[in-house]
Amino acid sequence: MSMPLSKRMGAELIGTFWLVLGGCGSAVLAASLPAGIGLVGVSMAFGLTVLTMAFAIGHISGCHLNPAVSVGLVVGGRFPAKELLPYIIAQVVGAIIAAAVIYFIASGKEGFDVASGLASNGYAEHSPAGYSLAAGFASEVVMTAMFILIIMGATDSRAPAGFAPIAIGLALTLIHLISIPVTNTSVNPARSTGPALFVGGWALQQLWLFWVAPLIGAVIGGALYKGLFREP
Amino acid sequence: MSMPLSKRMGAELIGTFWLVLGGCGSAVLAASLPAGIGLVGVSMAFGLTVLTMAFAIGHISGCHLNPAVSVGLVVGGRFPAKELLPYIIAQVVGAIIAAAVIYFIASGKEGFDVASGLASNGYAEHSPAGYSLAAGFASEVVMTAMFILIIMGATDSRAPAGFAPIAIGLALTLIHLISIPVTNTSVNPARSTGPALFVGGWALQQLWLFWVAPLIGAVIGGALYKGLFREP
Amino acid sequence: MSMPLSKRMGAELIGTFWLVLGGCGSAVLAASLPAGIGLVGVSMAFGLTVLTMAFAIGHISGCHLNPAVSVGLVVGGRFPAKELLPYIIAQVVGAIIAAAVIYFIASGKEGFDVASGLASNGYAEHSPAGYSLAAGFASEVVMTAMFILIIMGATDSRAPAGFAPIAIGLALTLIHLISIPVTNTSVNPARSTGPALFVGGWALQQLWLFWVAPLIGAVIGGALYKGLFREP
Amino acid sequence: MSMPLSKRMGAELIGTFWLVLGGCGSAVLAASLPAGIGLVGVSMAFGLTVLTMAFAIGHISGCHLNPAVSVGLVVGGRFPAKELLPYIIAQVVGAIIAAAVIYFIASGKEGFDVASGLASNGYAEHSPAGYSLAAGFASEVVMTAMFILIIMGATDSRAPAGFAPIAIGLALTLIHLISIPVTNTSVNPARSTGPALFVGGWALQQLWLFWVAPLIGAVIGGALYKGLFREP
Repeated sequence: MSMPLSKRMGAELIGTFWLVLGGCGSAVLAASLPAGIGLVGVSMAFGLTVLTMAFAIGHISGCHLNPAVSVGLVVGGRFPAKELLPYIIAQVVGAIIAAAVIYFIASGKEGFDVASGLASNGYAEHSPAGYSLAAGFASEVVMTAMFILIIMGATDSRAPAGFAPIAIGLALTLIHLISIPVTNTSVNPARSTGPALFVGGWALQQLWLFWVAPLIGAVIGGALYKGLFREP
Repeated sequence: MSMPLSKRMGAELIGTFWLVLGGCGSAVLAASLPAGIGLVGVSMAFGLTVLTMAFAIGHISGCHLNPAVSVGLVVGGRFPAKELLPYIIAQVVGAIIAAAVIYFIASGKEGFDVASGLASNGYAEHSPAGYSLAAGFASEVVMTAMFILIIMGATDSRAPAGFAPIAIGLALTLIHLISIPVTNTSVNPARSTGPALFVGGWALQQLWLFWVAPLIGAVIGGALYKGLFREP
Repeated sequence: MSMPLSKRMGAELIGTFWLVLGGCGSAVLAASLPAGIGLVGVSMAFGLTVLTMAFAIGHISGCHLNPAVSVGLVVGGRFPAKELLPYIIAQVVGAIIAAAVIYFIASGKEGFDVASGLASNGYAEHSPAGYSLAAGFASEVVMTAMFILIIMGATDSRAPAGFAPIAIGLALTLIHLISIPVTNTSVNPARSTGPALFVGGWALQQLWLFWVAPLIGAVIGGALYKGLFREP
Repeated sequence: MSMPLSKRMGAELIGTFWLVLGGCGSAVLAASLPAGIGLVGVSMAFGLTVLTMAFAIGHISGCHLNPAVSVGLVVGGRFPAKELLPYIIAQVVGAIIAAAVIYFIASGKEGFDVASGLASNGYAEHSPAGYSLAAGFASEVVMTAMFILIIMGATDSRAPAGFAPIAIGLALTLIHLISIPVTNTSVNPARSTGPALFVGGWALQQLWLFWVAPLIGAVIGGALYKGLFREP
């Protein structure tokens, strides 16, 4: 990783832009149609943003695209703490730009109303299927912890080389297949922040959970893998 | 495989936890919705739990996540019989913890009733589409036998290195695409046991089939590959 | 490929058994349900049978699982003509056994009627969406030709090593996504023969097309790749 | 890349033929049915045409299959400008032949009417979900730019070798999951030209956008990757 920090931040910005544009964009533009892509399509889209970017810029920045991933990798001993803040800033900026682009394209259809959500995350009355705050919190913690554990394992020097983007991307697809009905699935504070800034109101009020729960999960996942399975 | 047995048991526990959380969890949380993920989504979820975990912990424990796989690999000459019991205990414990987590999250939605099944396996009146005991038994034997044969082949030293997690994970997706309507698809006694303990009643009464049939299939699959295609 | 012919025939029999059991089985058992797997699920199932088997037995027999593939590889200069007949016999026997197993499992549900087809291939009044004989013939020729061309290319020594099972399996998924409505998609005479023997009547009367058209396509595909892109 | 230009043009023609036959063909033949493959199926089909062809002919021609890709790679410094025109001609010819084959097969069903579109691209009143010209233009520019960036990254000498066909094919699937409702998704002027020639009228009148916007996107994507992440 000899690239200068500024270029790696550029890669994180572009990659998180793609994650939010592809994941939330597919939800906003293509899932709500009568015969749209549905939850399976949105789950595939989120996963494929990470799979494609991990092949495209993994060699530049490591392709975190997610503050929880960066934190988890610090806890797991794979990423220097001093680069955490710059990475997170780049990720959040990328997510915000993506939300703006989705907003612009979605506005090109008559009747679009941003209050319908831009694929924001929520709990209780804003959970897609009406799951409680406790259920949402538990889901985000557990899903993020397992996500980090898979990332740590798939990028372990003992795992088959080159396949990590497939494992990690499809892990995100899987996580969405499970938990979209609960919280609309975050496991990524940057992904939650972008749309919430445009939706405002409830989305901003509930945003705290989608920073706190994924970060707790990230610490658990990173510590678990390091504690149990550390490379010798 | 120089990891101590206790760490490998930890990996099997975590991995089987993920298999049941992802597979049964997606069925409970996301398949029953009006516009949910359906049988294709659940089939993808089961397969992706194995694909992701095989990349994440394959280098730790071999990533069996399934008593039938461990038995099949003993028969096939790839796993020592003396480690069978510890592996199976870890797998069943992981599956039970996952069922508890699904139960907790699912309870966060009003109207949840565990009697609706937690994605338990069943036959006859508890087969999803009304298939008989004989059909269910045959299906579980054949599907497990083919699953073990694919595992033996894809991890053969003559097969392309590194790809086994893709082959094995997608084999489980395929098996679910075929046989969910018949038995809700087990091919994995640990996966059946976790939810059955919470559902009780019929799920426990029918649990025997989802130990007996997959284990018979596993013996057939392991013996078939070893007998026909043994490495020289 | 030092395995004796008998063992390679065993691999082809088992592999084609899996192709028909998974592909036609998913169509019969899981696609006709009210909220079943649909055409996307069946397309995935057919492709995954080949993907999984190519990783499992590719190193044993080359994993043709299809008389058209064996013929195409003879024309393309990759397979000895003298082994064509034994391979085709093994493939057809495997397909017939698979149809019998589907028949047995499907019979375990009340109201099953084999006349509804066991996923047989057809044209004109037996085309799933009412496509003519000419359309069905053209579709089978073109799809098989492209399938063979992809197989020749993906197994070329200049292509990335190890990935051919993914390319070939997903090519079969793609072919089904395009052409199920036209002929129910064959591109594989063995796959057509197994179910037709149990369905009888129209399925047997139309079976000729699903030998003739795929074999013509196979010759075209094999010759095209060899003529244009032969390895130096 | 020592193959003579004529053979590489042949590969581009065949590959683009497959892209349009598979992508537009699946949309025309299998997506409009009552229980058809839907937007998810069409998205998978487009991506799998590229994934399969990139494994099959990537070693022959580089497998661009798309004038925007060829232009992007020129801007990115990966493809000689003097071969641009021959590549684009081959791609457009392949796309036209594919549209003719779809037309022939589709005509084999009673009631087929080419005016319904052959999966042509469009905006405003011809956008599948009624998106404006501005939204369509923005979508095509952004999607193509990101597509080229992913292609540049995944084929970078620092990325894992052999995986580029998976990354690039699934990127195209992802792009369709997001943007089919907006423009029916082009990001490929050849893919737009083939069907438009048969549909005529509005499809030809709107064709300009599907040359201009993808080519602008391609220049942006190629320049962005080269400027930021150039190999040392």
